[in-house]
Amino acid sequence: MNQPDRNTQSPRCELRRQQVLDAAAECFRHAGFHGASIAQISKTAGMSPGHLYYLFDSKEAIIAGIVERNLESSLEIISRLEAATDVLGDMLDGVVQALGEKSDPDRVGLWIEVLAEAARNPEVARVVREADGKVRERIGHLAETARKSRGIEPRLDPDAVVEVLVGMFEGMANRIVQNPDRDNQAVAEVLRVAMTAVLEA
Amino acid sequence: MNQPDRNTQSPRCELRRQQVLDAAAECFRHAGFHGASIAQISKTAGMSPGHLYYLFDSKEAIIAGIVERNLESSLEIISRLEAATDVLGDMLDGVVQALGEKSDPDRVGLWIEVLAEAARNPEVARVVREADGKVRERIGHLAETARKSRGIEPRLDPDAVVEVLVGMFEGMANRIVQNPDRDNQAVAEVLRVAMTAVLEA
Repeated sequence: MNQPDRNTQSPRCELRRQQVLDAAAECFRHAGFHGASIAQISKTAGMSPGHLYYLFDSKEAIIAGIVERNLESSLEIISRLEAATDVLGDMLDGVVQALGEKSDPDRVGLWIEVLAEAARNPEVARVVREADGKVRERIGHLAETARKSRGIEPRLDPDAVVEVLVGMFEGMANRIVQNPDRDNQAVAEVLRVAMTAVLEA
Repeated sequence: MNQPDRNTQSPRCELRRQQVLDAAAECFRHAGFHGASIAQISKTAGMSPGHLYYLFDSKEAIIAGIVERNLESSLEIISRLEAATDVLGDMLDGVVQALGEKSDPDRVGLWIEVLAEAARNPEVARVVREADGKVRERIGHLAETARKSRGIEPRLDPDAVVEVLVGMFEGMANRIVQNPDRDNQAVAEVLRVAMTAVLEA
């Protein structure tokens, strides 16, 4: 959905692309994916609609860019954990910090908007599922490393463990909409117990 | 946001209200909250816009109706568990069934649409948070009963345990968008381990 054939990989283009993604994020959050027009997004990004269309074919391509950016930030967190000496310990220690980062209401609002569009638009669903598969694969390796380092023989289905780890985390982030006043510190403590249980089972 | 002062509580009105909620659910899923017009919703419901406005003031009032209906279905599941002899055992046994029910893609798509609107519309956020508070309160009682029946003295913050239980479950339901091919049976097995761990800690 991006246009690798055009010269959109230069640093200048990359900067412009990021400006569009930031502007689109703001517009989608306020008006929803369908309520936000290309005209509004390009105005917010401070460029002409023509310039925006040079960088992104469609609103779907913009969403793909947002999904990719989200994927990169997730893979970055995973890379940090892969470099850790005590993977399981660091995974658990990272919960509080990651919960705070991922529960930012603006980020959550945008992500829910992406999911809402994925639920009705097969092309967006495809992009979201592909990114999700990459995250699950990497977390699967991470979980395996964590278990091996502690000599744990898994009794539970490893794919299902990854699915629950991701779901738990994403569920908690998204729930900032329903329960914004929760005690994130206490919640992280409970998450540690749940994560340890499924990783050690 | 509903109109208790109008005679909308009669069985006939109740039926009509349910028809509007069904029609709105369909329209919101396909076009999003902002993309769906009252004209479309009333056409889908097979009634005039005037009749629809008699039953619901606004699209926000319709969303409130959808949230209420979702709340009723959650409280019904909780009531069933409250009547159980072995609350914890039944809670865990109910996971597979409930995961299947709650992961219906149409239901999930609609719910994510409601959350997306709650993330940008304070009035919808208020309705969603109020309903969520009721669910958490009842699950809190349920968890307390479960612990007492097994003589467990909680070490974790009970509110945080409830928040994680709800988040885990909701996260897993919503993730049907990202990972539709998962093995629900295997996932339920992992969820049981996680739920047991946080309820017994």
